Amino acid sequence: MSKKKILIVSAHPEPRSLNASLTSFAAEHLRAAGHEVRVSDLYAMKWKATVDADDFPDRDADERLAVMADSERATLDGRLAADIAAEQEKVLWSDAVILQFPMWWFSAPAILKGWVDRVFTAGFAYGPAVPPPYSHGPLAGRRALVSVTAGARGTAFSDRGIHGRLSDLLHPLQHGLFWFTGMEPLEPYAVTGANALTDEEYEAAKQAYAHRLDGLFTDAPVPFRTLTGGDYDHDMRLLPDREPGGTTGLDLHVHPGA
Amino acid sequence: MSKKKILIVSAHPEPRSLNASLTSFAAEHLRAAGHEVRVSDLYAMKWKATVDADDFPDRDADERLAVMADSERATLDGRLAADIAAEQEKVLWSDAVILQFPMWWFSAPAILKGWVDRVFTAGFAYGPAVPPPYSHGPLAGRRALVSVTAGARGTAFSDRGIHGRLSDLLHPLQHGLFWFTGMEPLEPYAVTGANALTDEEYEAAKQAYAHRLDGLFTDAPVPFRTLTGGDYDHDMRLLPDREPGGTTGLDLHVHPGA
Repeated sequence: MSKKKILIVSAHPEPRSLNASLTSFAAEHLRAAGHEVRVSDLYAMKWKATVDADDFPDRDADERLAVMADSERATLDGRLAADIAAEQEKVLWSDAVILQFPMWWFSAPAILKGWVDRVFTAGFAYGPAVPPPYSHGPLAGRRALVSVTAGARGTAFSDRGIHGRLSDLLHPLQHGLFWFTGMEPLEPYAVTGANALTDEEYEAAKQAYAHRLDGLFTDAPVPFRTLTGGDYDHDMRLLPDREPGGTTGLDLHVHPGA
Repeated sequence: MSKKKILIVSAHPEPRSLNASLTSFAAEHLRAAGHEVRVSDLYAMKWKATVDADDFPDRDADERLAVMADSERATLDGRLAADIAAEQEKVLWSDAVILQFPMWWFSAPAILKGWVDRVFTAGFAYGPAVPPPYSHGPLAGRRALVSVTAGARGTAFSDRGIHGRLSDLLHPLQHGLFWFTGMEPLEPYAVTGANALTDEEYEAAKQAYAHRLDGLFTDAPVPFRTLTGGDYDHDMRLLPDREPGGTTGLDLHVHPGA
């Protein structure tokens, strides 16, 4: 495989945690395969999690803060806070982005949500100044992988599991962030029962993760429908003759034939 | 209606924002109806968004941080950081919780996710020391309402909308947080097209919100299935004879007859 560039964004407060171990393992595994890897360890960086006026230092402080408009202006003028600009540079540098995090309350920890909220500004990741969303977005050409740990057992996140199917819970990242901005999301990788892994289970989890990392640029991405592919009406609703009977769930937005 | 206690948790950095206006409107409307209201304005409080070891000040700093175990010990010993304990007291005081926020990347802003991550500790909201989840949880007897604003048009969040149905995107809050802990979630209230509301649209939004607030304790909650109601197997999967054909989506976990 040709040499690629991978950004791993990791979000756990404990350097000896399973998440930290999986991040180190992935970085080593990918480097051993000849790739370049950069890691944004959000807790170690003391990443600021909250969007506020300080993100746009040149704005008029007397004006009402309008997050989308202010972030777009600061982005296009090259006047974002330095920590945001540095992360945008890493995303643009990358051929693939991996998000490594523990599932807290069925979504990403706040520090990682704050990485998304702050880095994916208007003018960079969405908005009138960049290519349109859902397949032609500004980050097209990049692979995206969620690697998540969860305390609950895997069956509880399975198709009929009570917590909801993992890919449905992760839809705001898989479809809302990755696909919206043009990236190609892979099926998530999950370690469940993560609070009580035996040594053997941890070794098995690493093996399984290595296999997923080996397929980072060759596995088929989730085949979400495109906005411009003729499946949606002008109000962005799926046409009635697509999936006329079957699901009422988020699978509506996945190509059934793929 | 008898007098009730309502906690509004509000998450927008701009005091002149639509979200701040809706929070003020709700507080006034509910007080005018005779209720008690407390507001946690997370940006004004400079709420710390990230879970870390400082949340559990009495833990042994040499030990590996285990978030669930450490949060449970600190909760049961009454040794949580003061800002967390204060928010837990507000939740316990309340008969209903309203979350007011702008949809950022198809979920709550990081500061609000951090309120959930930090306040809903093991021993308070889940875990072996409290009643079991999904209908008998420790916060039973409380209503819960999401009030969200979104820049996109409403059709894009409708049943077949490309962004995903609003209730599916909010499943981690509606089912994963509220229902898991025993609260009774109502259908979300949403203001869409929120970046360009006319004065008339804003007035209409307030009227619609007032109607939802009037039904806070009388509207039927989302009829999610219970874990102990006989619909799930021992691995927490919905039994095959429940919803044998239809949906493959998150509606699996809603009682079809209700």
